[in-house]
Amino acid sequence: MSRILGLDPGLHITGWGILDYDGFHLKYIAHGTITTSAADEISLRLSYIFKQLSDIVEKYSPQEVGIENVFVNKNPESSLKLGMARGTVICCVGVLGLQISEYTPNKIKKSIVGSGHAAKDQVSIMVQKLLNCGNVKLDAADALATAICHAHHKTSYEVKK
Amino acid sequence: MSRILGLDPGLHITGWGILDYDGFHLKYIAHGTITTSAADEISLRLSYIFKQLSDIVEKYSPQEVGIENVFVNKNPESSLKLGMARGTVICCVGVLGLQISEYTPNKIKKSIVGSGHAAKDQVSIMVQKLLNCGNVKLDAADALATAICHAHHKTSYEVKK
Repeated sequence: MSRILGLDPGLHITGWGILDYDGFHLKYIAHGTITTSAADEISLRLSYIFKQLSDIVEKYSPQEVGIENVFVNKNPESSLKLGMARGTVICCVGVLGLQISEYTPNKIKKSIVGSGHAAKDQVSIMVQKLLNCGNVKLDAADALATAICHAHHKTSYEVKK
Repeated sequence: MSRILGLDPGLHITGWGILDYDGFHLKYIAHGTITTSAADEISLRLSYIFKQLSDIVEKYSPQEVGIENVFVNKNPESSLKLGMARGTVICCVGVLGLQISEYTPNKIKKSIVGSGHAAKDQVSIMVQKLLNCGNVKLDAADALATAICHAHHKTSYEVKK
């Protein structure tokens, strides 16, 4: 049994989702979002993300982490902001001693709906069906989708060994 | 008396420098660089920067932090990498409860050499003269320059009050 944390980092909203996987079945555990306000100073926003994520890891004790591997935004200012949120999230799980695996958005969508070009709400609907977990907001659905993708990838990796 | 930490964050090299300022005199305390290898995984690199910077803050107990406010790179990939290092450094000092002030590269250069368009080695030479601290590598010199800029800015702010 593995407990997997999926993450969809952003400076405004960071989605997170946790599930258990025994090699055959997915079991939903929890999901949520960490939200910060643009009105606050950047150090306050980033340290808030760090502390909230640390609390989530402490509460649910995941053993593995999957994160969406972003394709950089055309706007360098947006890339810098996304980079700061992403850096905070990655360093947080690193400091807590967790291994992190990265997946492209296409790979994540493909593992959920069978196509790399699915719409965001299709992913959300499929995540809810696969995990039988009720209504999930988009950012948290992306995080759960990343966790599911990690579970599938992990299995195919273990089968290959 | 204030102890000021200056930072010049980067994924490969993060420069840092510490000085004391009593409102009239600058006193050099320490400087150095945190270096990570491109061969290592990103979570290892970022958590190493976080841990090293935490150790520096614990060892020298600065009360204030100055950081160079980057102008975003034209290349979104570079902006994302710089953002990750910057996010790690900012969230680290935020988690440790320190206030951070940001300064543009031009403002920093102007406060050291009197011109916003000075070459990097001019800044380094002036930092060594102002602090009487011997040879300092470029990245650490930029960090000390940021700390000096913060000291000057802080004074003018206090006079204005």
